[in-house]
Amino acid sequence: MPTNFSRRDLLKAAPAALPLLAGRVRADEPPFTGLTVRMHEPRNLEFPFSSLKSWVTPNEQFFVRSHFAVPKVDPKSWKLTVEGEVENRVELTLEELKALTAVTRPITLECAGNGRVFLTPQARGLQWGFGGVSNAEWTGVPLSAVLEKAKVKSGAVEVVLAGADSGIIADPATPGPIHFDRSLPLAKANQPEVLLAYKMNGEDLPVSHGAPVRAVVGGWYGMASVKWLTRVVVTRTPYTGFFQTLDYSVWERKNGLPELVPVTTVQPKAAIARPALHETVPAGQPYKVFGAAWAGEQKLERVEVSADGGKTWETATLTGEDKPFCWRTWEYAWKVPAEKGTSKLLARATAADGTTQPEKRDPDRRTYMINHLVPVEVLIK
Amino acid sequence: MPTNFSRRDLLKAAPAALPLLAGRVRADEPPFTGLTVRMHEPRNLEFPFSSLKSWVTPNEQFFVRSHFAVPKVDPKSWKLTVEGEVENRVELTLEELKALTAVTRPITLECAGNGRVFLTPQARGLQWGFGGVSNAEWTGVPLSAVLEKAKVKSGAVEVVLAGADSGIIADPATPGPIHFDRSLPLAKANQPEVLLAYKMNGEDLPVSHGAPVRAVVGGWYGMASVKWLTRVVVTRTPYTGFFQTLDYSVWERKNGLPELVPVTTVQPKAAIARPALHETVPAGQPYKVFGAAWAGEQKLERVEVSADGGKTWETATLTGEDKPFCWRTWEYAWKVPAEKGTSKLLARATAADGTTQPEKRDPDRRTYMINHLVPVEVLIK
Repeated sequence: MPTNFSRRDLLKAAPAALPLLAGRVRADEPPFTGLTVRMHEPRNLEFPFSSLKSWVTPNEQFFVRSHFAVPKVDPKSWKLTVEGEVENRVELTLEELKALTAVTRPITLECAGNGRVFLTPQARGLQWGFGGVSNAEWTGVPLSAVLEKAKVKSGAVEVVLAGADSGIIADPATPGPIHFDRSLPLAKANQPEVLLAYKMNGEDLPVSHGAPVRAVVGGWYGMASVKWLTRVVVTRTPYTGFFQTLDYSVWERKNGLPELVPVTTVQPKAAIARPALHETVPAGQPYKVFGAAWAGEQKLERVEVSADGGKTWETATLTGEDKPFCWRTWEYAWKVPAEKGTSKLLARATAADGTTQPEKRDPDRRTYMINHLVPVEVLIK
Repeated sequence: MPTNFSRRDLLKAAPAALPLLAGRVRADEPPFTGLTVRMHEPRNLEFPFSSLKSWVTPNEQFFVRSHFAVPKVDPKSWKLTVEGEVENRVELTLEELKALTAVTRPITLECAGNGRVFLTPQARGLQWGFGGVSNAEWTGVPLSAVLEKAKVKSGAVEVVLAGADSGIIADPATPGPIHFDRSLPLAKANQPEVLLAYKMNGEDLPVSHGAPVRAVVGGWYGMASVKWLTRVVVTRTPYTGFFQTLDYSVWERKNGLPELVPVTTVQPKAAIARPALHETVPAGQPYKVFGAAWAGEQKLERVEVSADGGKTWETATLTGEDKPFCWRTWEYAWKVPAEKGTSKLLARATAADGTTQPEKRDPDRRTYMINHLVPVEVLIK
């Protein structure tokens, strides 16, 4: 761990990034101390990425993304229905779900709008910095096990996951009050990295993270990991709900024509935790640049660092745990120039298929999938 | 024809509906005298519905709907390409298109936002009154003939019609500059009421109406009748372009979940031309209420009129031409009450399948498909 970083430096150097303290609001909630408030109600809290220490994010530091107010869900009366294009409509109580074979696996979640604060001109939506991303160990039942119980009919193509949370969004407008929901193609729904999770890092799932049961969809942006899950609806046609058309959608060119498609897989990204933006680093000294990187459904191949604004790149060392659908920590021994001034640090992740981060923002991605290179400017003194 | 209606009455009684005079802007354009300007640039002009006289709308009175500025298209170099999921990519000059067997058929076009000015609270978009609708005789080649030349591959599902007009819309945002385009399911594309038209009421297609060639899609709202047509692209998956997702789309409930679907078929609607809104009618006299009604892909079954705000309904007489995909004129002999005051006239169309006009606006239709009952209040003196 680098030792030349202090919270005092951060507060001094980057007042705009200063985390507001988000207080505990329910007795059964973790305190969320030190998370950055991106929206007060519904609650949207950012993991202060420059404080990254551990591969697993503690529950009280895991970023919180909510579209509507936290719904009242009583675990005792909670039920999950599996319906639509199935032979047997299934209804499961929490007890019945927990009686099924459980798995525990780490999965990193990143919000589809993570990094939006770096877009110019400013884009509508939550102004996430680097920290709309976290990693946890989830315990639950694979979605495939529940679909198997219901026997999916042939001809089915997608699985809609619907939450108990509901409300109205004004612009773009929801069709009256709606629940948060998102669909997966059947092939993805049946992958082992798609869980119905009721534990997070060994504890009962916190209310803000979707208690009693949420979906966790490894390799996809966070909007697919529906919280407060109550309905699983199998469909015969691709689902076109609000959160994959007017919201969480991007343009994709086919036959030279832009088409609106749902946001799906996480793009490669390396984020620098330290030095923090505008941190002061001592001239002529070694500095251990530290961060995390991830590549969605793919294996992370490498991380490179540039200390000259992108002219030259050097390979960083991947450290710690190496698990599918998870971020990796990385470090790079930077020899800080002896000359005083400023420096622009860049980090770049490349996935196993060669996909790397773009230099420029692609406007077809609307306000989502933000992984163009963002320089971290530091002061050398 | 009713005789107790005068333009002077209209001007006196309904200043808000007063048509602005839209001048001739190109030498090859009809004058559009007396159309109501709903947007100056790009040009959007409304047929002044209270002046309805003939079953066929004269070219210079036919409503004009444009999404972008009129493109520069030289008929001599114009080409239509048929591409995508076809065995033979086809390219046709205007001469080659005109050499194919032509058909002439009347088809009524209604804008999907016709009547939007009657929505409360005011909805975004062009503020059409009753007159975003007109009827013309179109001469051209069935789209099916051109698709047949190109030999559509098996597995194809839709046909995208793309215009030469292009630009940027800010909110909701197009993905940079795009062309106006819209798709049809292959089954609809092959129907005889879908034409590539180059004549309108016996004259060369006017520039504002899409010269040299436009699509005319009988039974569907006007956005499907792509003007300045240059590309026909056959696709293997349902098309999700801007004008059928962020624009021109409505909510449809399946499994209790609202899904965004493209606007397609015209809904039944009867519109009162005379009396005009707030027109003064003589007490105790007979008055011939006059209007038009249509039902999209369906046969118009009947029109009813209520002179008491919807408490009782009487059947109107359908008059004149009766052709599929066309409006019909209708009239109703109203015995105006002897008592002075106001009266609310309503007209209601019913299609052959029993579908009739709703009393209340369905918010799932967003700002399109506006056919709820709109009272025409008149003064009795």
